[in-house]
Amino acid sequence: MNRIYFDYNAATPVDPSVASRIYSSLKDVFGNPSSLHFEGRRARQVLDDARDETAGFLKCLSSELIFTGSGSESNNTAIKGVAEAYVKKGKHLVTTAVEHSSVLNTFKYMESRGWEVTYIKVDGGGMPDLNELASSIRDDTTLVSMMMANNETGVILPVKEASAISKEKGVVFHTDAVQAVGKIDFDLNELDVDLLSMAGHKFYAPKGAGALYVRKGVLIEPFIHGGSQELGRRGGTENIAAILGFQLALRELKNSSVDEMIRVGKLKNAVITGIRELINDVEFIGDKTNRLISGDLSEVPHLETLPNTVCASFKGVSGESLLIALDMEGIAVSAGSACTSGALGRSHVLSAMGLEEEVIEGAVRISLGRWNTMEEVDLFLQILPTIIKRLRSEG
Amino acid sequence: MNRIYFDYNAATPVDPSVASRIYSSLKDVFGNPSSLHFEGRRARQVLDDARDETAGFLKCLSSELIFTGSGSESNNTAIKGVAEAYVKKGKHLVTTAVEHSSVLNTFKYMESRGWEVTYIKVDGGGMPDLNELASSIRDDTTLVSMMMANNETGVILPVKEASAISKEKGVVFHTDAVQAVGKIDFDLNELDVDLLSMAGHKFYAPKGAGALYVRKGVLIEPFIHGGSQELGRRGGTENIAAILGFQLALRELKNSSVDEMIRVGKLKNAVITGIRELINDVEFIGDKTNRLISGDLSEVPHLETLPNTVCASFKGVSGESLLIALDMEGIAVSAGSACTSGALGRSHVLSAMGLEEEVIEGAVRISLGRWNTMEEVDLFLQILPTIIKRLRSEG
Repeated sequence: MNRIYFDYNAATPVDPSVASRIYSSLKDVFGNPSSLHFEGRRARQVLDDARDETAGFLKCLSSELIFTGSGSESNNTAIKGVAEAYVKKGKHLVTTAVEHSSVLNTFKYMESRGWEVTYIKVDGGGMPDLNELASSIRDDTTLVSMMMANNETGVILPVKEASAISKEKGVVFHTDAVQAVGKIDFDLNELDVDLLSMAGHKFYAPKGAGALYVRKGVLIEPFIHGGSQELGRRGGTENIAAILGFQLALRELKNSSVDEMIRVGKLKNAVITGIRELINDVEFIGDKTNRLISGDLSEVPHLETLPNTVCASFKGVSGESLLIALDMEGIAVSAGSACTSGALGRSHVLSAMGLEEEVIEGAVRISLGRWNTMEEVDLFLQILPTIIKRLRSEG
Repeated sequence: MNRIYFDYNAATPVDPSVASRIYSSLKDVFGNPSSLHFEGRRARQVLDDARDETAGFLKCLSSELIFTGSGSESNNTAIKGVAEAYVKKGKHLVTTAVEHSSVLNTFKYMESRGWEVTYIKVDGGGMPDLNELASSIRDDTTLVSMMMANNETGVILPVKEASAISKEKGVVFHTDAVQAVGKIDFDLNELDVDLLSMAGHKFYAPKGAGALYVRKGVLIEPFIHGGSQELGRRGGTENIAAILGFQLALRELKNSSVDEMIRVGKLKNAVITGIRELINDVEFIGDKTNRLISGDLSEVPHLETLPNTVCASFKGVSGESLLIALDMEGIAVSAGSACTSGALGRSHVLSAMGLEEEVIEGAVRISLGRWNTMEEVDLFLQILPTIIKRLRSEG
């Protein structure tokens, strides 16, 4: 059965050439990178190369990178690590109401440990209020964390501006870029952030490797305490195979990025145009999510939404029912974030945007990627109206 | 070049059949296990199967297992998680002086956060004083942590007895079993511990997957905060491929365990006998480390040292120099723990055992495993005396 996978924001297939290299590595590179003998040094070399190439991709120093086990670990490391390292300055932290659960729940945990957290509100388009951010920063504020792109809506947040506001007030700035890497171009030096989280399995690397950029000079308490790995900032034997996959998948991104964004952006345009033509009473979520991407995508670096993500709500249809109906037709989409879908709770992101209950209930996310084709989009657009019609009549 | 790898306690090669299954999984099972569609459910099935089989191996409930990214993460989760969950009872913790750095440094971190920690001393054989343990437990003690087997010396600690003492006083008991799994048989129910840490890359699974057993009813604060993965106890998309490898490597252990322990034990005997015959002024470290293992290994479950580990110190020879000289001859051993070897510090384990400086400096660890043969031991014993003689003459 040829299925259509439209859920790249939840997880991406591993690039086949990357999987093949990982397999070789699993067979050949088994030493512990902390060991001094040949087998250890060989593993260390793979690790060092991966770090150097990742640093090159981000345009940072190799010593500014910590490899982790996931984007969630990167976010936990950033938030807990900075909060603890700067505790003498104060115990106030700032973030937005639409962050990923690994950010929000870490802040909630810090509240249970005596920190105070301000959650910046967002407007109906999912954009945080930068004035509110500026006025929320106090003398005892030590960290501001704002995601680069929202996983559910695809809305791109004003990280550069937020970082400038924070830095002007002497506050460390972190961005969760897990959903941005590979989908938009960004320049770390232009963004001028202090910490940045990444996760390999969102850009065709395997699950099991994330990274955290920590600008030189920014203090951070280790998260996993243990040996002297990662310059003493993250204990645990390094997951060489997954880190190699992370490196190789980044290399592939670098080689294809703008062309691929344009290609995927055209698919997104076709999805939006098609839905608009074929189905009534649809709300596209995120202020500019329904803005078509211009032909040459010259504005890619300044897009307001990810070029791969459509978040739409069909009036009178539950997102959950639509997901299941599409799945039975061989099409994978998501309703809400994959990370909270198990719980089937109401999306905290859409709630924070002030959307009506019915719109939230009806929201589905279509997130495109490397192996999607225009034929798949056409097939989806053939099937979707019938399903919506049926679900509406059943509703 | 056919090298001889005698450093299985640092990292094991991945079993080739396991690597092959991981490769298939990397290509075919790419969904996010939290997603509700077919691709997600397929990933969820792999994860559930791995959890069920691991639970079967340990004889515990599937819901009592948390998959982590490494043994270090398992240890951090156990110690921080229990300390925080029981903070209303008190802020006193107990461990031993010979634990792995991921345990010791986590306790040191908890000290920086206001907890008090008692470090139980060990004797010259590496055995902790159980009377001291009993008397160290107070009304405000919430956790005792003692490793099952020491990574540097191979000494097996009295976990069952220590757990009984702790439980009698109503204190939660954790054991770091990272170096024990696959090397000795143990029965979780007989040991009667509350938490137990494992790491796949010590038993022929790939790096990137660990597990933590948490007995039903024992409270634990999540370590990585985030989504509802692992019953809300560990955020982050699960590393399906590595967890599958963990499961398959455990299955292989189960099928071969006692025979393999006997086979490896015979190699250890040959190493010890050979060194004794061929080289003067050698000290075997760990009270019973130099005890030969009896022919039928009927005593395997009650061994006092791991059947694969020899820790020996050659008078007048630096362990570091010996490691390098052997490496040049194609033989990989370790001097101290791989996890601290980067730092080249003095072994805290051997220091805690009260050994003389010269003995500590001269210590090397030979740790055997699945692909070692008697021919390799013979070759090692041919080469070693010449190297020792040369290093002693240079010293």
